[in-house]
Amino acid sequence: MGELIIWTLDWVPEGPRGFVRDLRLRWACEEAGLGYTVRTVPFEDRETNHLARQPFGQVPFLSDGELQIFESGACLLHLARKSEQLMPRDLDGEAHTVQWVFSALNSIEMVAVPWWFTRMSGKEDKGLAGWLGKRLQQLETVLSEREWLVADRFTAADLLMSDVLRVSDVRAFGDRPASEAYVTRLTSRPAFKKAHADQMAHFEAADA
Amino acid sequence: MGELIIWTLDWVPEGPRGFVRDLRLRWACEEAGLGYTVRTVPFEDRETNHLARQPFGQVPFLSDGELQIFESGACLLHLARKSEQLMPRDLDGEAHTVQWVFSALNSIEMVAVPWWFTRMSGKEDKGLAGWLGKRLQQLETVLSEREWLVADRFTAADLLMSDVLRVSDVRAFGDRPASEAYVTRLTSRPAFKKAHADQMAHFEAADA
Repeated sequence: MGELIIWTLDWVPEGPRGFVRDLRLRWACEEAGLGYTVRTVPFEDRETNHLARQPFGQVPFLSDGELQIFESGACLLHLARKSEQLMPRDLDGEAHTVQWVFSALNSIEMVAVPWWFTRMSGKEDKGLAGWLGKRLQQLETVLSEREWLVADRFTAADLLMSDVLRVSDVRAFGDRPASEAYVTRLTSRPAFKKAHADQMAHFEAADA
Repeated sequence: MGELIIWTLDWVPEGPRGFVRDLRLRWACEEAGLGYTVRTVPFEDRETNHLARQPFGQVPFLSDGELQIFESGACLLHLARKSEQLMPRDLDGEAHTVQWVFSALNSIEMVAVPWWFTRMSGKEDKGLAGWLGKRLQQLETVLSEREWLVADRFTAADLLMSDVLRVSDVRAFGDRPASEAYVTRLTSRPAFKKAHADQMAHFEAADA
């Protein structure tokens, strides 16, 4: 395989800094010890200037030599195939890592993002809020019973689930001590801290 | 590996029949020629009666011998690893199938489901409707340029994307001829027709 390149925006406003999803890929590479470069597309006209590489105009996307992949979940699984640090190599461990990667996105983030979206637009939907509360409580039950989602060890599933849960408004939604401890534990990892600091520095440098 | 079992509910009301997501797994098995059995958990108390096997109380989930997997996306990728009918075996074909599986769920369904949810509760969110319209139009551009999402052939990505798009309210949302032709083409496949008929018969039998 060739060079790993994580593509993100050249600049974003302060609000989303620390939460742009290139962080998921930076974090994974840091955990796995995979070398990578960060390259950018312009913030200006971002919804149309890279449709050939990401048909929904989003970031991140990943280059691995000639191969190009978008969707942070798909990029994460691609990186996880490269390193056992991110996903066990046995059938069960792999299947359950994939399962919880989908779960983070489709059972939690699928409810959290639209809830947040309606809230930001000043019309918080009570139905979505109730649905989110239920899902977060179901996850709290899981996290009350174990430290990691898969195979008693860190995997890409924990990386993604904690990244979904650490969003400020989600983290402040209700009292869920096991989930809070989980987010604190995951975001204390040196690889997260480095990825986060690097993203912050990347966007700050663009202010200059 | 052992016996494949697709788990679903024993009964649902008429509304969701033909759309319960066990159909995604039935369809995949039919395309791949994989033998499977369908087993059920009770509709009554469905939110709590199978939390040990699906922590969010949903269906479907899949047994493959001793291995158990939930999340329809994860189950689909597990089946796709078993059969080249569902996913090419080269690196690009596999990565792009995974990419579009995530895209169906996270770039389209993640917007469509909450939009539908607020609509059903009588409070359609205009912001979510606008977001959905934008995403569907971006996908229409993709589908205007090619017949299949990946590698000029049917994959699990087309199965999932067409299953997301065929939901009546989504299908009726705006005028998107390439997407409509895509849904018609995919749902005309014998494997879809059999999976759909089998699900309808399964729930009808429970009425008796």
